[in-house]
Parts: sequence; structure tokens; C-alpha cells
Amino acid sequence: MAKGASISGFPEWLPSERVVEQRVIDTLRKVFELNGFIGIETRAVETGASLLKKGETSKEIYLLSRLQEVGHESDTPIEERLGLHFDLTVPLSRYVVEHSGALAFPFKRWQIQKVWRGERPQEGRFREFVQADIDVIGAGDLPDHYEVELPLVMVSALEELHAFGLPKATVHANNRKLSEGFYRGLGLTDIEGVLREIDKLDKIGADEVARLLTESCGATEAQARACLELAELTAADGKELAEKFDALCAAHGIAQDSEAYALARQGLDTLAMIVDEAAVIRPGSVIADLKIARGLDYYTGSVYETFLDGATSLGSICSGGRYDNLASQGNRKYPGVGLSIGLSRLVSYMLHTAGAHANRVSPAAVLVAVWNEEDRPAANRIAAQLRARGIATDVAPTAAKLGKQIKYADKLGIPYVWFPASAADSENGESAGDEVKNIVTGEQVAADCTSWEPDTVVAQQTVEI
Amino acid sequence: MAKGASISGFPEWLPSERVVEQRVIDTLRKVFELNGFIGIETRAVETGASLLKKGETSKEIYLLSRLQEVGHESDTPIEERLGLHFDLTVPLSRYVVEHSGALAFPFKRWQIQKVWRGERPQEGRFREFVQADIDVIGAGDLPDHYEVELPLVMVSALEELHAFGLPKATVHANNRKLSEGFYRGLGLTDIEGVLREIDKLDKIGADEVARLLTESCGATEAQARACLELAELTAADGKELAEKFDALCAAHGIAQDSEAYALARQGLDTLAMIVDEAAVIRPGSVIADLKIARGLDYYTGSVYETFLDGATSLGSICSGGRYDNLASQGNRKYPGVGLSIGLSRLVSYMLHTAGAHANRVSPAAVLVAVWNEEDRPAANRIAAQLRARGIATDVAPTAAKLGKQIKYADKLGIPYVWFPASAADSENGESAGDEVKNIVTGEQVAADCTSWEPDTVVAQQTVEI
Repeated sequence: MAKGASISGFPEWLPSERVVEQRVIDTLRKVFELNGFIGIETRAVETGASLLKKGETSKEIYLLSRLQEVGHESDTPIEERLGLHFDLTVPLSRYVVEHSGALAFPFKRWQIQKVWRGERPQEGRFREFVQADIDVIGAGDLPDHYEVELPLVMVSALEELHAFGLPKATVHANNRKLSEGFYRGLGLTDIEGVLREIDKLDKIGADEVARLLTESCGATEAQARACLELAELTAADGKELAEKFDALCAAHGIAQDSEAYALARQGLDTLAMIVDEAAVIRPGSVIADLKIARGLDYYTGSVYETFLDGATSLGSICSGGRYDNLASQGNRKYPGVGLSIGLSRLVSYMLHTAGAHANRVSPAAVLVAVWNEEDRPAANRIAAQLRARGIATDVAPTAAKLGKQIKYADKLGIPYVWFPASAADSENGESAGDEVKNIVTGEQVAADCTSWEPDTVVAQQTVEI
Repeated sequence: MAKGASISGFPEWLPSERVVEQRVIDTLRKVFELNGFIGIETRAVETGASLLKKGETSKEIYLLSRLQEVGHESDTPIEERLGLHFDLTVPLSRYVVEHSGALAFPFKRWQIQKVWRGERPQEGRFREFVQADIDVIGAGDLPDHYEVELPLVMVSALEELHAFGLPKATVHANNRKLSEGFYRGLGLTDIEGVLREIDKLDKIGADEVARLLTESCGATEAQARACLELAELTAADGKELAEKFDALCAAHGIAQDSEAYALARQGLDTLAMIVDEAAVIRPGSVIADLKIARGLDYYTGSVYETFLDGATSLGSICSGGRYDNLASQGNRKYPGVGLSIGLSRLVSYMLHTAGAHANRVSPAAVLVAVWNEEDRPAANRIAAQLRARGIATDVAPTAAKLGKQIKYADKLGIPYVWFPASAADSENGESAGDEVKNIVTGEQVAADCTSWEPDTVVAQQTVEI
């Protein structure tokens, strides 16, 4: 990250770092489009009412006010004020309802945009960052095969980022219905509370979670232990998952003909399907992990978190789930499922841990030297010829000493310096041809700007690890 | 623009419109990089102090406040609050100073990002829009050849947009030193006031401007007329420009040995150079237009506005200039020159006036049909094969009747529908091969997903006019 960035939580990349971020974005877009996702961009603002749906005021939102309104902000109720979006899912839901007549459903979309969280400044938390999302939204209903396909698209996208130093990613899936059914079967009622505490398991450990469950969620010691047993249940496949789950229900007296079990079973079947299908298509890419809870309140079924091998301290780098009730219009619901990559954090990891770096700062492959300012038009003509043939070209900023011009190219990582035939030479009847030098290898050859081709590898601006 | 967008001034494109915007952005980026500009992205926020430099509070700025701070916004002085950037030039200047040690100068950068203006809602004014900027910033000094090269890069970028229905663009250039020197030579002192009124010439006409100059800027009738004469001066080349300017100075008693004339002459020489150089490289692309003033106060030399043939009502679509005093660090100045395309308005013109449209909504070239849900894995395998070979592919959302699946492809504009060999067919010993149908031409052929290639033209998602 750029040193000395003056506002905490608003990361900004140096040009060479931005090359990496830009390539990551390009790569994700390519994968998303290859899979038939449609790109959209939503406005950065939503109404307070939309951002605060369900009345949660604990959300971390930036509200806007016009400079002219300073001191009178409170004249407008928060619901009517504008705020910056904190994710891309809430805007998508609003967009889909607003433009439903113009969309084909199921609507598969990708979206890579900045989001903002109005947090208190604190170490390591971004208040502005880029998210890269894919979602599918149905009109009325949404087939559950998307609940396995979307995580797999993300896995294939993350695999493309191995070239940028990203380790193997594994999606951990759970299902809220499974958890909720089980908790209800135990006799618990504060489902959101239990999910919230279980979410802390990796951070604070089982004993502490058990204590919180009993203290804050009205659980008995036994109920708390049962919740932890569920969270720690692991299985190699859907069949084992179902068997172990049924055994757990039996052990805790949850009858198979109860409503609670029926709800849990619905979630279990979806989760089993996801794990089994993923194992066939891409073994080891998606596993069941029954402690995954997700902070956001709009998920209603599958939930996902994604971890990188050897980088668990990074936390989940790609999360999401199924949300059946986020968008609706009259009686019609628009259920969706999607995942979101926290791109800025991922790029930060690539740059600072994986060592990803651009082979050069400038997109230019060639710098045309300028012998003196009177020759600049000739240098510009050479540059125009090269550009017309798709070769990115810069021209020396001043007719400085050649060493200084080469140093400028070197600082920008431009591999070739072009020497136009000097007017003086041609008047003297000496060699009047242009030459081009690879300043890395030192090789210098005669060259014609209408036909010369750079080495295809050297010419490319790329990311290396 | 998407119908029914619920917040005035925050445009949002439908997916098919977004295809056009995305292609425009891709095209501009390509041209900018071909010319050696380095891409950066700055954070969306700056401090109030940075946004309000020079103490102007008439600026249209959105300030931020955290949800938790509502009611206490005024506890923080505006200078310390965060606000959304209203252009990309102020952030660039701040970025350059902040990271000067890590940059090579002159620093050529491109930047395509959203900006926000906290205006009162009104018809046709965007409060959120995309700008596409190029700038060059020097450390200490900046050669003036960039003052002709940058508008020419913009002209070549806009030429690439002819394919999207954009008419020919002409850059109108002026120079603030020229205007200021002339006004001072006349004895006027409220230079910014005069520039502000002259800027209205096209809108309100010469008589009204003359009235405003006398009423608000302390000009006599004769001074006002002289200002208008300067604004209306036209010339075919730099030589004629200089001759006509000198004649005007003589007519109004501005002595050639005066300080005011020296200042004007400096601006005139730069403007003459720009016009003459541009005429050689790209005739008719950049002309002198002495009524161009520019609203922003940070320009100190060349100023540019760009108009489209036959679309003058659109106003300037690409504006900018040279700014010598925007960024500094101690004694060191970072003079810059740059231009900014108002991209959202341009895309709006392309969509609604020029008729630019995507040939299809979905990036997918192929939709794989699904005979029944049990066959979905086979359809997914075919899709994976095609994608691995770079062919963007979608899979039918449900195993609906074939007509419905084709209708889905049609609605998204996907040209090919792939029919996997039916399991039933192969059990019956009948034809077991896949087939693919071009649903536009109706042509249907046997195809193998490991080797089939779509028609290269049909396969591409493009923008047509």
C-alpha cells in the first residue's frame, strides 16, 4: 500500500501495485463473463431506508450531506438521506426490483465496485474497498443448482489468481436452515443470537462460546454443548453428513417428524447436494463446515466462506449465501444466491505476502529518444507509427542527455529505447537509419517503425511472483 | 438510462447499456495505455481542507458522516471531515505530492472513476458520474509540448469512439495568461469575474455579457467591448492569431513593452504553438477559441473545451487545462496539464442520440440446453469444455421445454444453443452426437465441444450503431 496514505482505512495503491489490482480485476471479469455473467454497475448511493432495511442501526454506513446543508443535516430523516452502499448485494436487489421488466431471469450478474463502511478508524480495517461479486437472482423462484455452481465459478476465478501468488482456496459451506432447525429442535429461540456466538468459534474457542450461549442466548449447558457439537461436525460426503447429523439429532432428542427437523433436513439436503456435486466437478474445492454462520442478516439458506491454504489469519476472502427475502415487489419475490470477493484485502495479500509485482510500471514497451527539441515532431511520428501497430509507446519528456532518457525508461521499466536517425547524421551522409535498443540485454539493432516488432514476451506488461 | 431510477441525478444503466459504457471505458484505456499513460485509482474521499482549497465554499461537495455520528456532524470542522471528490484532478495532485518519492516524473497517468457533485437535484444534471482523465504532472517544471500532445491523445481516443456513434470532436483551446494579460492591459482587475462572464457568451449572447461586465466587473463600456472583441477573435494559424492579437492590443492601447502584454504574449505563444503543431499532426483537431474560460479556478495557462460536430447543445464533452499551482511540497511545485472526459454524459449521448447498442446482453456465445435435471452434470461438462477453450457459455436455468430454453437464449441475445446428445437417444442406439444451432440463421450442425468453433463474428459481444 502507498506509504503515508493520509486517511486511515482508505487504501490507495502505488502505480506498480495498481497494475496488479487491475490485472486481478481483468482476470475476474474474464472468468465471470466466460461463465455467462452480465456486468452491471450500480450507483454508489442508496437511500437510508434501503441501507437500513430491517431497522438495524448498528450498520456501518456513511451518510452524505451537501456542503450547503451543513448544520441542517438532521432536518432530513435518515431514511430519506443518501448513504454509500456497504456491499453490492443490497444495491443489486434494489436494481433488480427497479428494472425487473427489462431483465431476463434468472439474472446472472457480475459487479466489481468500491464499497464503503463507516467504521471507526482502526488498524487493518478498510473503510473503502473493492468487492467483486457474482449473483444469480430469480423471479419467483431460483433453482438450487446455482447454490453449487456459483461457489464453483468463484473457485475457478480464484484458481486463475494462482498466477498472482494466491494459494489454493477452499469454500466452506453451511446452511442456515440446517442450523436453525437444529437449534429450534433443541428448544432454542434466539436463533440469530446463537448464530452470532457460533460465528466466533474460531476466534475465541469452544469454552468461551459455550459461556456466551448460556449467558446471552438463554441456552442451558447441554443446549450449548449440542450447538458446539453441530458446529464441529465434519463429513467427507453428503451421505456421511446426513448420517452424523441424524445421529446428533437422535442424541439430543430431535424427532424426525418434528417441524424443526424438517427445516434442518431441507438445509441438510441442499448442503449434501452442494458437497457431492462439487466433489465430482472439482474435488476438494467445497466442503461442509457447520460452524459457518455469516454476519449479514439477509441470508436464508446456503452460506459460504472461503479460506486460503496457509493464510487462515486473513479470514474469509470470499463469502456469500442464498437470500430469499431481500428483494420483493408486491407478492413476487426475487430470491438470490451470490458470493463476494473482498478484493482489496486479497490484492494486499498478493502484494505484501505473495510477492506479486508488475514487471514494469509503464504500459509502454518503447520510449522514443529525442536528440533535441527540434526533433520532437520526428520522434512523435515514430511513436504514432508504433502505436498504430498496437505497440504502446512513450516519447522522452525532454531532449536531455541520452543517459538521462535511458534512466527515465529504466525507472518506468520500459524495455526498449528507440533512437531516431539523427538529422545531423543524415546531412553528413552517414547512417540515417533508426535503431532500437533493448536496455535490459543491451542488444541494439537497426529498425524501421513501420515493420519492427518487439519480442512478444518482453513487450508485455505482466504480473510476476 | 434505466427507467424509474429512484434517485434523481444518479444515473444507472441497464445491462445492455452498460455493455456500451464498458466498451467505451475499455477503448479509452487502450488508447491511454498505447500512449504510455499509467493507470491509477485514488480513494473516493478527500479531506474537506483538500476539497475546499482556496476557501471556496460555493463548491458542490458531498460530505460524509458515520451513521453513529448523526446529530453530531458539526462537532468536526468541515476541513477535517471527509468528502467525496468532485473531480479527478484535485485527488491526483494530492496523490502526486503524497507519493512523489515513488513516482517517475513527468508522471503520465490515466484514471477512469466516478466523481460526485453535491448539487441540488435538477433536470439533466448528474450528481454521480464517471470521468476519464489523462494528465501529466512534472516535478518542478513541465515542458509545454505536453500542452499540445494531451489534447491530441484525447482527440485520438474520441476518434476510436466513432465506432460507437460519436461525431467528430474538435478541441477549442485558449490560454488564461493571454486573457488575463489582455484584461490587465485594458486596466481591469477582477480577472476571475471577467472570465466568469465571458464563459457565458455562447449561452446569453454578447450584449448581455457586456452588461454583466460593466455591472459586476467594474468595466467601462469600451473595456467590455474590448473583452468581447478578444473573445470573438478567430485565426487560421498561430501567425494570424499573433497578428490579430497585436492589432487588437494596438487598438486598445496595450503597449508591447508593458507587463500585461508580456503576460498575454506568453499565453499567446503557447496557444500559437498548440494550434500550429496540432495542425501538422492532425489538421482541424485543435483550434484557438479565445472565449474559452473554464469554470474551475485552478487553471493557470492553457484551457481546453471539446465539442462534437452537430451536438453543441451537449456542451463541452472533454475539458481541462494547465495548472501550475495545484500541488506543491515546500518550495517544489508540481505543475500539470490534463483533460477530462465527462464519460456518463457521453455514453448517454451515444445511447440515446447516436443509437449505440450492444448486439447482445449476455457475454455468452453459447447456451447449453438441459433435457432434464438429471442431465445437468453432462450439460455442465460441455460448458466447462467450451469455456476452457475461451468460448463464453451459459447453461439453461431449468430443464424447461426446449422452446422456453431457446427463448431465454434469444432474450439474452445468445446466438448458439447447444443440444447435448440425449441419454435416451444413446440408449436406443440412435444418433448420440451433440448438435449446435445458430438460433438466428436456424442452421444446426453436429458438433463436438472439444473442437467446435463458433463463427468469429457471431461469437463476439459488440456495440453496433
